[in-house]
Amino acid sequence: MNKIEHLGIAVTDLEKSNSLFERLLGVPHYKIEEVKSEGVRTSFFKSGPNKIELLEATTPESAIAKFIEKKGEGIHHIAFAVDDLKVEIERLENEGFVVLPGFPKKGADNKMVAFLHPKGTNGVLVELCEDIGTIENKS
Amino acid sequence: MNKIEHLGIAVTDLEKSNSLFERLLGVPHYKIEEVKSEGVRTSFFKSGPNKIELLEATTPESAIAKFIEKKGEGIHHIAFAVDDLKVEIERLENEGFVVLPGFPKKGADNKMVAFLHPKGTNGVLVELCEDIGTIENKS
Repeated sequence: MNKIEHLGIAVTDLEKSNSLFERLLGVPHYKIEEVKSEGVRTSFFKSGPNKIELLEATTPESAIAKFIEKKGEGIHHIAFAVDDLKVEIERLENEGFVVLPGFPKKGADNKMVAFLHPKGTNGVLVELCEDIGTIENKS
Repeated sequence: MNKIEHLGIAVTDLEKSNSLFERLLGVPHYKIEEVKSEGVRTSFFKSGPNKIELLEATTPESAIAKFIEKKGEGIHHIAFAVDDLKVEIERLENEGFVVLPGFPKKGADNKMVAFLHPKGTNGVLVELCEDIGTIENKS
């Protein structure tokens, strides 16, 4: 794991939170992107080598809607950048970690992503992500 | 805010979680440090330019004990590195953010730290930290 790629934060109102995080981080968000397959609209901020991703649910079935219903707004997941998602998943599965069903798949911000089951990671929802450009260059 | 300095994770058993995060991150923790004033024992891992801090309560009154009682183990706070804590606090207070009472004060890992009230930050407990070495060089 090379670094914290981003921290995902569940919010109820993306526009309101964009304004809040602009004031907090002192920089504007640099893009908004909808990930239809996940039922979310996302917004990204840079903080040096890291990013903050705000996530707003677009459907009541979205994992973000369910998270907010249960726990309220707040930190939803931590994403680590990896060089090779396949190799890293294999390493983690050998260590006993469990990848959530349906992953790896395409996530926001031009990444292939996979999530680990939080029951095996002290309640922390961990995402692994690899740039799609990197994957294409390999094949 | 220069980068995500670290992510703080509340755990019930530091030894168990040290072993878990060693397997997850693929690196050993590089130090254990007790912060008596906060009633916590902490452990640090590096992930590129960022750190993961595990926090175990040493007293039932500790904020970490209360957090785990209410929400279970999991992500507790996000810390950003700042060049000048005083200047950053002034900027944030002018933007309407509220610094928790008793801060800034000395935290783990040789830092002066301050926390923002999570009611003003979408439920996210935000820490700001500055290297104590930097502060001493200024004065």
